[in-house]
Amino acid sequence: MSSKLLSRVQCKQLRSKIIEPSGLLPSFQGHQAIGWSGFTGVDYPLQSLEPLIHEVRSNSSYAKPVFDLRVCSSGGTATESTLAELGMVSSRSPYQVSKAINKGINNKRIQFHDHSLIDFAEQLTSGHLGAKNGKPQSLSIAIVEATEITEEGELVPGASVGVTPELIQVAEKVIVEINTNSPSLRGIHDLYVPALPPSRSPLNLCTSSDRIGKSTIPLDPKKVIGIVEGFHGNFPNRTESGTSITKAISQHIIEFFKHEARRGRLPDNLHPIQSGIGAIANSVVEGLGNSSFRNLQVWTEVLQDSFLRLLESGTVQYASSMSLRFSPQELENFYKHWEFYKNHIILRPQAITNSPEIIRRLGCISLNTPVEVDLYGHVNSTCVMGSRMLNGIGGSGDFMRNAKLSIMHTPSVRPSKIDPVGISTIVPKVTHVDHTEHDIDIVVTEQGLADLRGLSPRERGREIIEKCAHPVYRPILMNYFTLAESACLKAKMGHEPILLDKAFKMHTSFLERGSMKISSW
Amino acid sequence: MSSKLLSRVQCKQLRSKIIEPSGLLPSFQGHQAIGWSGFTGVDYPLQSLEPLIHEVRSNSSYAKPVFDLRVCSSGGTATESTLAELGMVSSRSPYQVSKAINKGINNKRIQFHDHSLIDFAEQLTSGHLGAKNGKPQSLSIAIVEATEITEEGELVPGASVGVTPELIQVAEKVIVEINTNSPSLRGIHDLYVPALPPSRSPLNLCTSSDRIGKSTIPLDPKKVIGIVEGFHGNFPNRTESGTSITKAISQHIIEFFKHEARRGRLPDNLHPIQSGIGAIANSVVEGLGNSSFRNLQVWTEVLQDSFLRLLESGTVQYASSMSLRFSPQELENFYKHWEFYKNHIILRPQAITNSPEIIRRLGCISLNTPVEVDLYGHVNSTCVMGSRMLNGIGGSGDFMRNAKLSIMHTPSVRPSKIDPVGISTIVPKVTHVDHTEHDIDIVVTEQGLADLRGLSPRERGREIIEKCAHPVYRPILMNYFTLAESACLKAKMGHEPILLDKAFKMHTSFLERGSMKISSW
Repeated sequence: MSSKLLSRVQCKQLRSKIIEPSGLLPSFQGHQAIGWSGFTGVDYPLQSLEPLIHEVRSNSSYAKPVFDLRVCSSGGTATESTLAELGMVSSRSPYQVSKAINKGINNKRIQFHDHSLIDFAEQLTSGHLGAKNGKPQSLSIAIVEATEITEEGELVPGASVGVTPELIQVAEKVIVEINTNSPSLRGIHDLYVPALPPSRSPLNLCTSSDRIGKSTIPLDPKKVIGIVEGFHGNFPNRTESGTSITKAISQHIIEFFKHEARRGRLPDNLHPIQSGIGAIANSVVEGLGNSSFRNLQVWTEVLQDSFLRLLESGTVQYASSMSLRFSPQELENFYKHWEFYKNHIILRPQAITNSPEIIRRLGCISLNTPVEVDLYGHVNSTCVMGSRMLNGIGGSGDFMRNAKLSIMHTPSVRPSKIDPVGISTIVPKVTHVDHTEHDIDIVVTEQGLADLRGLSPRERGREIIEKCAHPVYRPILMNYFTLAESACLKAKMGHEPILLDKAFKMHTSFLERGSMKISSW
Repeated sequence: MSSKLLSRVQCKQLRSKIIEPSGLLPSFQGHQAIGWSGFTGVDYPLQSLEPLIHEVRSNSSYAKPVFDLRVCSSGGTATESTLAELGMVSSRSPYQVSKAINKGINNKRIQFHDHSLIDFAEQLTSGHLGAKNGKPQSLSIAIVEATEITEEGELVPGASVGVTPELIQVAEKVIVEINTNSPSLRGIHDLYVPALPPSRSPLNLCTSSDRIGKSTIPLDPKKVIGIVEGFHGNFPNRTESGTSITKAISQHIIEFFKHEARRGRLPDNLHPIQSGIGAIANSVVEGLGNSSFRNLQVWTEVLQDSFLRLLESGTVQYASSMSLRFSPQELENFYKHWEFYKNHIILRPQAITNSPEIIRRLGCISLNTPVEVDLYGHVNSTCVMGSRMLNGIGGSGDFMRNAKLSIMHTPSVRPSKIDPVGISTIVPKVTHVDHTEHDIDIVVTEQGLADLRGLSPRERGREIIEKCAHPVYRPILMNYFTLAESACLKAKMGHEPILLDKAFKMHTSFLERGSMKISSW
């Protein structure tokens, strides 16, 4: 028994549960719903499933189990992919980034439940999730990451909180995996699980540094079927660097913030920022660092590198997140300056980070990247060409619907195989709607920023084409818009003009010829 | 000066503000943003604008003002229609039911801002509403209904609270209209306006009978430019009676509730009910009255007749609403048994009734009627054929997004001019999305109830066609679905199958030939 692991399991009673991962093999049998922690962060449990994968791979007559995977969001993508390739995944909730899982979703082998993260958390505890034909499915096993088990037998989670508390609460059996190559994160968490209605109380949290829960998760020892050691390294992430496009987008956004602050519609320290993952998000955060805004608050789901530097410089006062996602260098920096960061960062479960109650109370500024946006501000975040699932809605719906300022940022075009500007992200009508016109305030591309607040659909159409569309697509879109406007006004149905038989013509052109550029409508 | 009016204006200082409506004429000039109380209820201010309407009508050289109308939701529809017919309405927020306003919206004379009610309330106080090209528009005049002004000069609203507190707070000038033909409603209200972020606190309300505010609205006497007497009668509403269709829908829903309660997924008194307006809503509420469910709570926007009977019988314990909408008979009954109803009903502003924080905390069961629903559970609530505005999203988005159970109920078909089943409410793809697949749990028609929880899109498609579609459209829809599924799976993009070039073929068939029935795809 590794002394490293023993030092992390303070509770003597639970030390008897320490086992080799191979000891878990008999627990995986038949068709099971499995909860699994991991949220795009730097760490997640991996060893627990390795012996099973090895058996299934090496022994073709092994009675392989089939899983309904309920992952906080996205966890061990490599392991997930392997499970999918071995045909061991029947369904998956609520968000995924693994290639083989994605393939299975789009070729019908895997049923995907694309849930908003707040709803996923609530459905887990209410027993609605996986109810099929009125029969709710219980969660057989939860595999959760921990960085320590306290003397009282409570669990200190790792860098990805997600729905770990809920998984532990509802699962019949619990496997705890402690990666001894990562230090304990004791003290950084604030863990609170809202009660179910009708017994739910207000979340008494008014700023990103407020604490309303405990720093550990209660664990019923009777449920624990194994504590295993993880000894893989971390999984730090590459930080996507900015381009002239992402920098232009960032500049438009910072200019807009300055403009709003000058007019007194935003305080000088803005409102708490929620920002997604990727190059645009990084450029915006960097832009904030170079601006005169100070004492910012962050209320987000995933904390990336760029925020660490802003915390150090004091540009950001406090950051609340659900998980940490750092590059190797910044991860080292984070562990090195643990005492500083522990006092400037709180990690929370997604039932809190994504709570409409809190997002609306704090008045968050929310920034996300869509697949495509249409003339009236409807947004597709999940289904390419209306049918191919990318990753899922994740937390974007929770934030876009409730933020004080909902901002969609995207390059105006993307390359296709045959055309460097073959795909316009501004389209006549999105092929799938994840966020409606009612929820989007600002659309911004490298071309410019469209402020949709207070505009009717026809006004929005013109604003988005003029400010956001790529010059190649501007005349194409304006042509469609004027045709649609004239036809619908003639028919006395001109509130939000559409040509039902032509609305997807740019998309079908792309599918047929590889480019959305069309010469006529 | 009417003694009736004097008895309602207890504050001596404010009595000096009592004027004839004609005295308000000089206040209406140029292009103005006007706030106006009224929320589908039994009463709203009408006299204040009468002299102006008379002037404009009778004097063609009168310099008529033009208004941006910000109404709580829907108020004095006849007066609104007159204003629209006289060309005096430039824009309108956030919801409307007036014929001439609707015509103006669809023929481009009126810009319509279709806001979720919670967002409308928040935008009013944050100054974002009407910001165009970065220039926010201030609210020139608020015309609000009151049933009394207290000795301290505070205002007792009427039967439609809506955003009355916010209008009074943000308007430069206030006109108070007291309809002396309606009794004072003092004591029934609970009025609280959330502060703006970053100073917003939790709403400390955990059940529909909790009170967190005052029963009156503070009024700055300096803002008041006139108190006028309304002496029109009430505007009680016709109650739409049930049909075999609405009764079948109601039965499916009640059966579902019983099923959920038996399995312990709903408590025996269900969860607080939100129910819309109309015949289906009435049938469902009547069905609850005939069921064995007792001690129900109601958390809704508009209280209709049927709930009064349930309050009397004790089936409903307590009802929280934003407005009252009764038939003449029930209105009389309400006034007659005022002491009883005052202790069983609370009227609140829409910032509270429609607050995601509260709706989610209470775990509401939300029932609404859509324009159309598609195979995957996306819902169109506002735009017929994607472009013709009906009334607006109103509060449906606030509830559907946050309710514990989001239920869409609709007849499976509607008649067209040439075909009694010419319009299917179940369609391959909705032409406009107001509520996404992520937010809808249950779809129910007279044909049956589809429980979408825990289903992937392909599973949802089959479930909705089999359970909800009209028999005439079932094979047509199933044919589309299998074609779409096969094409998209072949292209490895089969998560949510769609045929982009055929998705609206039933709609274009209706536009061209008057029926959605098509013989082939």
